[in-house]
Amino acid sequence: MKTIITMDVSQVTLRHRLVTMRNFLALDAGGTSTRAVLVDSAGNCHGYGTAGGGNPASRGFGPALDALVQASTLALGGRPAAIEGVLVAMAGASLELPLHLFQDGFEPLGLTGDIMIESDLLATFYSGSCHDEGLALIAGTGAVGARIAGSQLAAVADGTGWLLGDEGSGFWLGREVVQAVGAALDGRGQATALTELVLAELGIAWEPNARTQGRLRAQQQLISRVYEQSPIELSRFAPLVFKVQEGAAQEDVVARDIIERAANALAQTLLAVSQGVESDGAAQLAAGPLVFGGSVLTKGPTVAQAVVDALRTNKSGPGAGLSTAIAPILVDDGVAGSAVLVLKRHGIDVDAGVFSRIQDSLAALRS
Amino acid sequence: MKTIITMDVSQVTLRHRLVTMRNFLALDAGGTSTRAVLVDSAGNCHGYGTAGGGNPASRGFGPALDALVQASTLALGGRPAAIEGVLVAMAGASLELPLHLFQDGFEPLGLTGDIMIESDLLATFYSGSCHDEGLALIAGTGAVGARIAGSQLAAVADGTGWLLGDEGSGFWLGREVVQAVGAALDGRGQATALTELVLAELGIAWEPNARTQGRLRAQQQLISRVYEQSPIELSRFAPLVFKVQEGAAQEDVVARDIIERAANALAQTLLAVSQGVESDGAAQLAAGPLVFGGSVLTKGPTVAQAVVDALRTNKSGPGAGLSTAIAPILVDDGVAGSAVLVLKRHGIDVDAGVFSRIQDSLAALRS
Repeated sequence: MKTIITMDVSQVTLRHRLVTMRNFLALDAGGTSTRAVLVDSAGNCHGYGTAGGGNPASRGFGPALDALVQASTLALGGRPAAIEGVLVAMAGASLELPLHLFQDGFEPLGLTGDIMIESDLLATFYSGSCHDEGLALIAGTGAVGARIAGSQLAAVADGTGWLLGDEGSGFWLGREVVQAVGAALDGRGQATALTELVLAELGIAWEPNARTQGRLRAQQQLISRVYEQSPIELSRFAPLVFKVQEGAAQEDVVARDIIERAANALAQTLLAVSQGVESDGAAQLAAGPLVFGGSVLTKGPTVAQAVVDALRTNKSGPGAGLSTAIAPILVDDGVAGSAVLVLKRHGIDVDAGVFSRIQDSLAALRS
Repeated sequence: MKTIITMDVSQVTLRHRLVTMRNFLALDAGGTSTRAVLVDSAGNCHGYGTAGGGNPASRGFGPALDALVQASTLALGGRPAAIEGVLVAMAGASLELPLHLFQDGFEPLGLTGDIMIESDLLATFYSGSCHDEGLALIAGTGAVGARIAGSQLAAVADGTGWLLGDEGSGFWLGREVVQAVGAALDGRGQATALTELVLAELGIAWEPNARTQGRLRAQQQLISRVYEQSPIELSRFAPLVFKVQEGAAQEDVVARDIIERAANALAQTLLAVSQGVESDGAAQLAAGPLVFGGSVLTKGPTVAQAVVDALRTNKSGPGAGLSTAIAPILVDDGVAGSAVLVLKRHGIDVDAGVFSRIQDSLAALRS
């Protein structure tokens, strides 16, 4: 019923609303893709557009700005609208960016107000909730946890990158998979069905007894292939651990161990940010909404469920203050949250009604 | 008594011996330094020289050959000698190198025979033993284990590089140290005395409550500094784990855990290569000599002792077939072993007498 009303508002009275409502552009700028939405102050999303990577840290300033403008132009769809404000959610929002250049890029689109940059962590959280207190856990290529308080980031844990941490992330999983195969090949680790999958993926023939200078030839080839590519590309092997877990007639101990360690690390990241509010971290977890983002947590139930299990039996006492039903809210990205944020930052109260209008009208535009 | 005789032979009758004895050059070519020794068929070392990195894989072919020739020229010390053979021990000995270019480089020095390349693993083993069967474990910047059989490498485990393995190596230890500090800073891990040392080493001020966008400023600076340098440079933090362990009034749990995991991983690497000979890997360990090389194992007793402890309680049964006294032979590098190898490869029997002449005369030259 609600959906029908929203469709009506956004289609029939669109022209009128664009004149009388306040309009905003909300962007979610990732390393490889950017999403933009035109949203009004009642939470109605009127247009949606996507483009390539829009993060200056990974793409460079010029190409990133081009992507932001391109996605925004698509979201505007040629409709004339005065844009009161633009909000861009991105990783590394604390970097000192030349905001006036962003401003110059957006003025031709009708921007009359300011452009602001916010953390992608906040945007991910607000994609799942309109509350101003809660927790977010994201495990995509990287992994990071955050506590939100007063609609700001109060604490951040991990997100320390592929070399230092990002434990439980896609990169972390991919590296663990290849390390486990390396160890299985030379006998340091247990045999695993991952070996066949990884060698096949890399086009390496498996000859059990072929050695050169004492080294198994398959392992030598594995080493060569891995060091030919950039370290971060190891994340491509992450899906194999789920494939093995799901497809195996009997459980693969090595794959299960990797998934369990990922889940425990992610639970630890979440507990780290949940502490400091109450002495009992577990009780705090149950208080506010818990939002999960990133493909590792949202594209399959395995890790998300294992994280919830790990939270129930955390060090602060096995589930003492914890609700029996921890139900994380799964979100695909930060574009809905960016729309929530741009309204909040312009003093607009995003209540449950506005929030569900954002969710529903955005979903209709993306479908 | 033996030493006096050796000195007599090598000094008084040197000119005569250089004419009648067969002479060889043995080199140990590392990534950052190269060692060369002039050795005769009786095991007497007559000259010693060092130069910069001599490994073509890390230095490039031209500079590597220059270093090999420079160290050899110093070892020859202007003495006229026909060199029957040259042996260069280096990592990556299985690479296809343009041997004729090596040959061209050495002929002006008096080389009449061939030049051969052997694995640095074999050379490290033979620096500690003249037997043709046994085990070697090396933990320097990297970490690798090998079983030697019939004076060849029969099995090699790990040595898979910083991204895939090298577990228990200097790089691995350094990365664990910085990861532990990162986790301690944001509350994912326990507090540790390593934090103060790492932050001081990087010139980062420790302000417990200073945050930007929810992230502790000290952690943000740690992340920035680490990603400014090349990953392999993390090995510089390895010594801190021993400093904390040795200096602490009460034991640092985090540091102890890192050292224990390093030792367990190294023990696992050794057990992996010891298997395949006898079904009981532990019994095999006790059979041949066990040689330890690399700074992590030789520059302090902590890890070497922990590896021995871990071997005693390995999975194949707690010390069942294992001698109560596992006494690894510690060696500094592979130059003595390269001398052993060059003689063996030219059909010369390296018995205990020849071996101890190599050791004693080389030690005298290096002192």
